[in-house]
Amino acid sequence: MKAIVHIRPRSGVLDPQGQAVAGALKHMGFDEVLSARQGKIIELELGDDDEQAVRQRVQKMCEHLLANTVIEDFSISIEP
Amino acid sequence: MKAIVHIRPRSGVLDPQGQAVAGALKHMGFDEVLSARQGKIIELELGDDDEQAVRQRVQKMCEHLLANTVIEDFSISIEP
Repeated sequence: MKAIVHIRPRSGVLDPQGQAVAGALKHMGFDEVLSARQGKIIELELGDDDEQAVRQRVQKMCEHLLANTVIEDFSISIEP
Repeated sequence: MKAIVHIRPRSGVLDPQGQAVAGALKHMGFDEVLSARQGKIIELELGDDDEQAVRQRVQKMCEHLLANTVIEDFSISIEP
């Protein structure tokens, strides 16, 4: 079973990586770029087939390691 | 208009970040983790409303700055 975790900076939290991306794109002539925010995707391959259990375990992985919940939001999607 | 760009290591390309994540999770007791791969999400806010044009421009942004197409794949989704 596969779990895909999206981790993004919380709205309102300063995102210097995103600002750097937006600045670089404007500098290259992409003037339509108003702003950018950068986050992470983590794809996990898991040896467990119970979707409910997998979701709970991945939630714990996010809280304990993958995301910094003070400044980041995360969402989990499970694929068979 | 909003464009969301997903950038992931190409399959077959070594992904040391993903390996570190998988190793750390196993070390913490998440033994069901078989492997992990880590990529990026970039959310762009764009001052242009033509979906076709936006997609072409974002494709160029990916090829020229956002993704390293030798080792990374990217996909673009557009939201109003």
